[in-house]
Amino acid sequence: MLHARCKAEVLKTLIDATSTLVDEVKVRVEPDGLSLKAVDPAHVAMVELNLRAAAFQEYKADSMEMGLDLEKFKEVLKLASGDDEVEMDFDPSGHRLVMRIGNVTRRMSLVDTSGMSDPKVPKLDLPAKITIVPGELERGIRAAESIADHVALSADKDTFELLAEGDTDQVHLKLDRSMLAELKATEKSKSLFSLDYFANMVKAAKGASGIQLQLGNDYPVKIEFDLAGGNGHVTYLLAPRIES
Amino acid sequence: MLHARCKAEVLKTLIDATSTLVDEVKVRVEPDGLSLKAVDPAHVAMVELNLRAAAFQEYKADSMEMGLDLEKFKEVLKLASGDDEVEMDFDPSGHRLVMRIGNVTRRMSLVDTSGMSDPKVPKLDLPAKITIVPGELERGIRAAESIADHVALSADKDTFELLAEGDTDQVHLKLDRSMLAELKATEKSKSLFSLDYFANMVKAAKGASGIQLQLGNDYPVKIEFDLAGGNGHVTYLLAPRIES
Amino acid sequence: MLHARCKAEVLKTLIDATSTLVDEVKVRVEPDGLSLKAVDPAHVAMVELNLRAAAFQEYKADSMEMGLDLEKFKEVLKLASGDDEVEMDFDPSGHRLVMRIGNVTRRMSLVDTSGMSDPKVPKLDLPAKITIVPGELERGIRAAESIADHVALSADKDTFELLAEGDTDQVHLKLDRSMLAELKATEKSKSLFSLDYFANMVKAAKGASGIQLQLGNDYPVKIEFDLAGGNGHVTYLLAPRIES
Repeated sequence: MLHARCKAEVLKTLIDATSTLVDEVKVRVEPDGLSLKAVDPAHVAMVELNLRAAAFQEYKADSMEMGLDLEKFKEVLKLASGDDEVEMDFDPSGHRLVMRIGNVTRRMSLVDTSGMSDPKVPKLDLPAKITIVPGELERGIRAAESIADHVALSADKDTFELLAEGDTDQVHLKLDRSMLAELKATEKSKSLFSLDYFANMVKAAKGASGIQLQLGNDYPVKIEFDLAGGNGHVTYLLAPRIES
Repeated sequence: MLHARCKAEVLKTLIDATSTLVDEVKVRVEPDGLSLKAVDPAHVAMVELNLRAAAFQEYKADSMEMGLDLEKFKEVLKLASGDDEVEMDFDPSGHRLVMRIGNVTRRMSLVDTSGMSDPKVPKLDLPAKITIVPGELERGIRAAESIADHVALSADKDTFELLAEGDTDQVHLKLDRSMLAELKATEKSKSLFSLDYFANMVKAAKGASGIQLQLGNDYPVKIEFDLAGGNGHVTYLLAPRIES
Repeated sequence: MLHARCKAEVLKTLIDATSTLVDEVKVRVEPDGLSLKAVDPAHVAMVELNLRAAAFQEYKADSMEMGLDLEKFKEVLKLASGDDEVEMDFDPSGHRLVMRIGNVTRRMSLVDTSGMSDPKVPKLDLPAKITIVPGELERGIRAAESIADHVALSADKDTFELLAEGDTDQVHLKLDRSMLAELKATEKSKSLFSLDYFANMVKAAKGASGIQLQLGNDYPVKIEFDLAGGNGHVTYLLAPRIES
């Protein structure tokens, strides 16, 4: 059983954060909120997202699972502007989600979750921790996109850097301690990542006030940010590329 | 003879209402205003439009006909913003319409009307009458467009409904008497229509304060709205699809 | 050596004015400012542009040349909004231009200038001189674009005219002395031009308060306007088409 009502923008953020990695996702519904975990088909990245009951205007649920077609879900939410409210009810008879936006009722079929695995999130102890305004990262990413497919992220005790190298051109974003909300790094950490994946993750955080990166040496990066005014949280893991 | 001057938006509405059905149209010019009738090539829908002399800042005309290429007419009007004035004079020597927008004079060739028929508008006595704000219908239509090609419209004495059925999904817009400007229906009326045609007709009404629908049982729908601040009127007839 | 800092919009105007004719350009750097000359591959049009040191917040340079890939330069400037500042330093070791926008450093490779010629700007004494607001010309050009590839410009002592003729349609922009900032013409001058080239040149002037045209009879048109608040200047020459 699920009955929930919330601002459309909360569900839009959920979709934006997840649809960069997968087309369909299994959502775990519990009395205290929703959560999901997914790995992209190439096994390069993982997302873990939760949305507490407090993120909703109304929320009542029993434990259950539902499979969402993210493209279709996004299409339905386009009927609402960010401030409009969306009401959702699970209809067990037809295995559909009944969504109400204004006077429109949209009965949306769910996808079968039986083939969907439950990815295990690895425990990582990463030596560097940086918190940054998403907008600062975005400009560096946009600059990098026109010259390279990969981007190196590095941190030491004084600076965080993003570096992209093309055949002849170079992009370099350098932020010292004073420009960062948080910087903890005992030693120098540096890893290389697919720019495409990294860009999509940072884009999903655009509404957040801060984005936290945890870095190691040739290790995955952990990217975290809040959604729904602190009543939800997204964690990405992105595997490193080995420098050739 | 024709000499007329009006806001560009008046002519833009005329084009928007007509170009969803035909590429070229024969306009009847009379001393008291303009009018046109047209049937789409598939004979599924009909438009009847009139624009009284009062819709124009200046209007002087003798009885005549002129054939408009709607695509070209739309192109010319793009030179004007909605509030700009457009001046039109018929030039009988070259069989052209001379349009003036700001300091630009655009001599536009007319199309031959000899092959264009005069459609007869059937008299219909439809049992249900609904007046609705275009915006309400638009959200239902947008929701329906992603799942179906057809839409059922129905009315009884208490509610107006729009229903679209896909293979697994459903869209339902339900408005009761309190949400409608007008609802008159003695019996239950329901008919099925091509969503594409219906959507375009409702889109053409977007500037109107209300749109009136007249419905029967497996009968055409009559769609009416005012333009040019009540100095013009559009009537559509759209044939029903038979439910399979 | 070059060190310069300016608003991004100054460099964007430089690119807009030049990239309509060439993909790469040789920029002459001098202690008192930048300048460039270029001819399009079809040898139909020429641009001459200068930007004085006063157009920059900071400017320090020795005499040198640098070859710019305009498409890449435009891409880099997209990182800045019009009001953002851009810092440029020439890096002789890598033959690159080092650009700083916010906290991003973009090292951009330069192109080889050895194959680029120095076009000679012909001296022309043209009998008619007209100064006009770019917006007025733009509407005439937009109207002309949908019916013709060429446009005739003419001036006599009382009026400036733009005329385009299609097979059946015609566009005519007529401005008398009262609608022009300047009109000097002793005799009637008229020449025909490629609409495509002319449109791009007028578009590049969109930020300027006035655009000056100098016309003759079947002679090139000279098009001039200021940029960077009068601290820069653009001159185009466009060859006439012979009326067939």
